[in-house]
Amino acid sequence: MSLFSKDIQNMNDLLVHTLQDVYYAEQQIVKALPEMIQKASNSDLKEGLQSHLEETKNHVKRLEQVFQMYGAEPKGVDCPAMDGLIEEAEEVAGEAADKDVLDAAIVGAAQTVEHYEIARYGTLIAWAKQLGRDDCAKVLEQTLEEEKAADKKLTKIAESQVNRQAA
Amino acid sequence: MSLFSKDIQNMNDLLVHTLQDVYYAEQQIVKALPEMIQKASNSDLKEGLQSHLEETKNHVKRLEQVFQMYGAEPKGVDCPAMDGLIEEAEEVAGEAADKDVLDAAIVGAAQTVEHYEIARYGTLIAWAKQLGRDDCAKVLEQTLEEEKAADKKLTKIAESQVNRQAA
Repeated sequence: MSLFSKDIQNMNDLLVHTLQDVYYAEQQIVKALPEMIQKASNSDLKEGLQSHLEETKNHVKRLEQVFQMYGAEPKGVDCPAMDGLIEEAEEVAGEAADKDVLDAAIVGAAQTVEHYEIARYGTLIAWAKQLGRDDCAKVLEQTLEEEKAADKKLTKIAESQVNRQAA
Repeated sequence: MSLFSKDIQNMNDLLVHTLQDVYYAEQQIVKALPEMIQKASNSDLKEGLQSHLEETKNHVKRLEQVFQMYGAEPKGVDCPAMDGLIEEAEEVAGEAADKDVLDAAIVGAAQTVEHYEIARYGTLIAWAKQLGRDDCAKVLEQTLEEEKAADKKLTKIAESQVNRQAA
């Protein structure tokens, strides 16, 4: 037993807390992606990130829809994980001297961001279903599919172009 | 062109830098897992995390083997991403009042850590192959398969037990 107040009493609280975490994370991605797009050189990579930026703006809206369906306030909470992922992406981008090597680093960093989201949406969907909220799960599944597709697209761009150019 | 020195000149540098990042990350996981195991209640979850702790110690050794094969120094570099992932796991674990809800939160957090590693090892393997180092890629592939298996096992424990108990 703790002397401190515990804000997460049940699974509803945990689901809402994690929605807030991902809501903040998606907003940080919307802020960080333009710099990555500007730093990238390969045109397919630039286009892929640009189209994922548009998708990400839509993920923010879908989360607002789920908050509303769930009767919860659409607000963000600090997400040290996404802050760290973005800090690491910016650090390595600042260290790479060659434009092709920088492209390879950007793909790698973007895939760590995708995988954070794949894990988070997978968990949110499982929790929503367990709580009998298949309606919320269905909305979140659309985003999960887009995150998985974005990750696969990055792998394809890396293996067919970026890594070869950089090596 | 930057006024600052750029430490990553080519793909070899990027590969070594990312090996160092993952080396630090794996070491942080070895430090953080015992507390998560201690906080978990479900016996399958406790056992699963314990067995992954043993695997993780082996991942550290495999990275040392790859550093040696690659002729690079086995040292860690700061990995803000893993620091953030672990900070987030500890925060949410500290907020959950109920032991079953805490278990669900621990599974979710552990899966974000697994996914970070899945992304990183996938990238490292692709770069090693591109650089003609299939020998290094082969060692890293063993770890990637274990990370994927650990993630699947967590999903199974969550869906068959933990989420039901917590809901």
